[in-house]
Amino acid sequence: MLDPMKETAAAWIDSNESRGVSLLKKLVEQRSVQGNESGAQAIILEKCRQLGLQIDLWEPERESLKSHPHFYCTRAHFKDSPNIAAVLSGKGGGKSLILNGHIDVVPEGDLSRWEDEPYSASCRDGKVYGRGTSDMKGGTVALLMAMEALIANGIQLNGDVIFQSVIEEESGGAGTLAAAVKGYKADGALIPEPTGMKIFSKQQGSMWFKVKIRGLSAHGGTRYEGVSAIEKSYAAASHIKSLEDERNKRITDPLYETVPIPVPINIGEISGGNWPSSVPDLVIMSGRCGIAPDETAESVQQEFEEWMKTLAEKDPWFKDHPAEVEWYGARWLPNGLDGEHELLASLKASFLEASGKEAVVEASPWGTDGGMLFHAGGVPTVVFGPGATEAAHFPNEFIEVRAITECAKIIAFFLMDWCGTDDLLNGGSK
Amino acid sequence: MLDPMKETAAAWIDSNESRGVSLLKKLVEQRSVQGNESGAQAIILEKCRQLGLQIDLWEPERESLKSHPHFYCTRAHFKDSPNIAAVLSGKGGGKSLILNGHIDVVPEGDLSRWEDEPYSASCRDGKVYGRGTSDMKGGTVALLMAMEALIANGIQLNGDVIFQSVIEEESGGAGTLAAAVKGYKADGALIPEPTGMKIFSKQQGSMWFKVKIRGLSAHGGTRYEGVSAIEKSYAAASHIKSLEDERNKRITDPLYETVPIPVPINIGEISGGNWPSSVPDLVIMSGRCGIAPDETAESVQQEFEEWMKTLAEKDPWFKDHPAEVEWYGARWLPNGLDGEHELLASLKASFLEASGKEAVVEASPWGTDGGMLFHAGGVPTVVFGPGATEAAHFPNEFIEVRAITECAKIIAFFLMDWCGTDDLLNGGSK
Repeated sequence: MLDPMKETAAAWIDSNESRGVSLLKKLVEQRSVQGNESGAQAIILEKCRQLGLQIDLWEPERESLKSHPHFYCTRAHFKDSPNIAAVLSGKGGGKSLILNGHIDVVPEGDLSRWEDEPYSASCRDGKVYGRGTSDMKGGTVALLMAMEALIANGIQLNGDVIFQSVIEEESGGAGTLAAAVKGYKADGALIPEPTGMKIFSKQQGSMWFKVKIRGLSAHGGTRYEGVSAIEKSYAAASHIKSLEDERNKRITDPLYETVPIPVPINIGEISGGNWPSSVPDLVIMSGRCGIAPDETAESVQQEFEEWMKTLAEKDPWFKDHPAEVEWYGARWLPNGLDGEHELLASLKASFLEASGKEAVVEASPWGTDGGMLFHAGGVPTVVFGPGATEAAHFPNEFIEVRAITECAKIIAFFLMDWCGTDDLLNGGSK
Repeated sequence: MLDPMKETAAAWIDSNESRGVSLLKKLVEQRSVQGNESGAQAIILEKCRQLGLQIDLWEPERESLKSHPHFYCTRAHFKDSPNIAAVLSGKGGGKSLILNGHIDVVPEGDLSRWEDEPYSASCRDGKVYGRGTSDMKGGTVALLMAMEALIANGIQLNGDVIFQSVIEEESGGAGTLAAAVKGYKADGALIPEPTGMKIFSKQQGSMWFKVKIRGLSAHGGTRYEGVSAIEKSYAAASHIKSLEDERNKRITDPLYETVPIPVPINIGEISGGNWPSSVPDLVIMSGRCGIAPDETAESVQQEFEEWMKTLAEKDPWFKDHPAEVEWYGARWLPNGLDGEHELLASLKASFLEASGKEAVVEASPWGTDGGMLFHAGGVPTVVFGPGATEAAHFPNEFIEVRAITECAKIIAFFLMDWCGTDDLLNGGSK
């Protein structure tokens, strides 16, 4: 039988669904792409004020972060891009929890592929549409609804809850790093990235590479006198594909059992040549290399670089013109909880209690700020949220309203279970 | 035994080699890339004035050209980009000849790959270095030296010589088109493009294409949910290579006997994707498709487009996502003289007489304004010049001074032979 306090919290969430939708719409209407986060953060700030949280709003300082080994950021400054941490203090004697959501969204891309204006936050058929709905303003709304369900019903926790609305997740995690450096730590953390209500106990890391392929220029009319860097780039891409095969053969973690390519290497961009009538002498391919939860970025870089050297065995051209590998731009650290970790066990129990179903536990195909929370802050982190993975970063991004409220209930139960509350009949902190 | 008049002309050219070099240096120092031709044309103009030619200098008018079926140009206007035609009138009774050189040069490209500043016109080891030396200010200097050798020695021709210094050859031939439309015609034409002193009786045409390849976007971490346009572009490029093979199998013209790929299809540029962590959904490849001398642009376009449709037989993806072919930008019409044409015979004879060697006759691997002279003006055209094909369009472009003077002699003899002169002991016009 469900504890009456949990019943109360769940009922409050159900009856306040429209308030959650209203908050989400306001957040989505703010185009909080990198450098433009302040409008959305102002809405978060006002909500935290209404909830009576202890608010800390600050603009991270590049100078104090840049020497950190996990600072991956090309921004010159974070002026007008504030981070928020807002604390719901516990009575004492319970475990603390960070609830972390990022406020930044990726750009909307090709407008012609959107059915609605990307920041119109249109609602229909139980869904809200728009950039950032799934990734991850819907998740942030679930966090705030879960906290409000407790606050509104006078349910007091023993441990502290630190709600964070951070910048820069989409570009390497400098926002969460800034919070960790500022001293925000806890016994555990939950990030409601769009997992489709699965629990991602491990997260794949990733980093960006550039591969430069050289050719030999010639006039297109005598192209046989040159060597096309475009043709050579096919060999290089195929060699990268073989590396992906090799790396994925090694993955035995059952969490990846159903995943076709657990740790993909994606070539996302290609550019080469500068004149239709010339044989191109340079092609640059850029991409994303996945890092398995038990790997380090450094070991993967080394493997990649060594592998590319062996291209010369397939095509002697590369002996004197080796593919040049460069690591650049954003990076997301991998992260993983032991299958027996208490944070995972507690969330699974709350999931079962709130939904009546066993949670599906998988490993994420992408990085999150969980890597930063753990590697920079030492905080064990689990990722679980209401949005749709397949919708994130794409046109017509959406989220199901029902998933937000279901997720909010599970998180509300999890807060009571993890942080503990004397208001529970069974005493909490189980 | 060489005719005394020819001996006089040849001797004059030999002893005035340094004047030719001086003129070439002045021309090379002018960076006459598209839109910036006026400085170099001013030097040509002054030289024509010194030679006493009837000068016509005009800026082509886009309005009067744009409806012409052979107008291939993206410029909005030709203000400050004058064409020059300068006529050396004959006494009458001889055949007329157009001597056509283009004043525009292609951009210098990557400066770091040049040993000298590209417009410094450095001289060493009997060569002049710089953008435009071979392509084709050296050829233009050879034309002017040949004419001056006759004028300075009082050798009068029967037919008219129309010297043209035109703009826009490197971008589709609007300069030569403008001269043809203005009414400049002749019984034959010679263009001293850098043939390495071979006679190119036929010229390959070419045109630019774009091929768009579609994919299906997805997050790089779940790249198996998408279809990479980069991977699909390899299939498309390989299919284009097969078309090149097919087309070149058909070429039986003995002029192409020693050419590895008589009519190449060159993919010169590739670009695709816009985010390292996304599966790219669009790749655009641009290139140059050769047109054999006996083909039309239209028939080649049709063959190319039909061929690309058959890609779906190799990979069903292309059935619903066909490669999209577009023809754009510059175009050079193919051109060719019959092996028995009197213009070719006359030039070969002059070559033998001036150099003591049989001329090598081949087909050019690139287009020239010869296509425009013939198709827009009806003028049979031969291409023969002193520059080095392999130097054109590349860093450290150069020309051998000796080749300029040798070429000038052959052209001087050719002028006397083709246009006729009563001053020749044998009567000329043979």
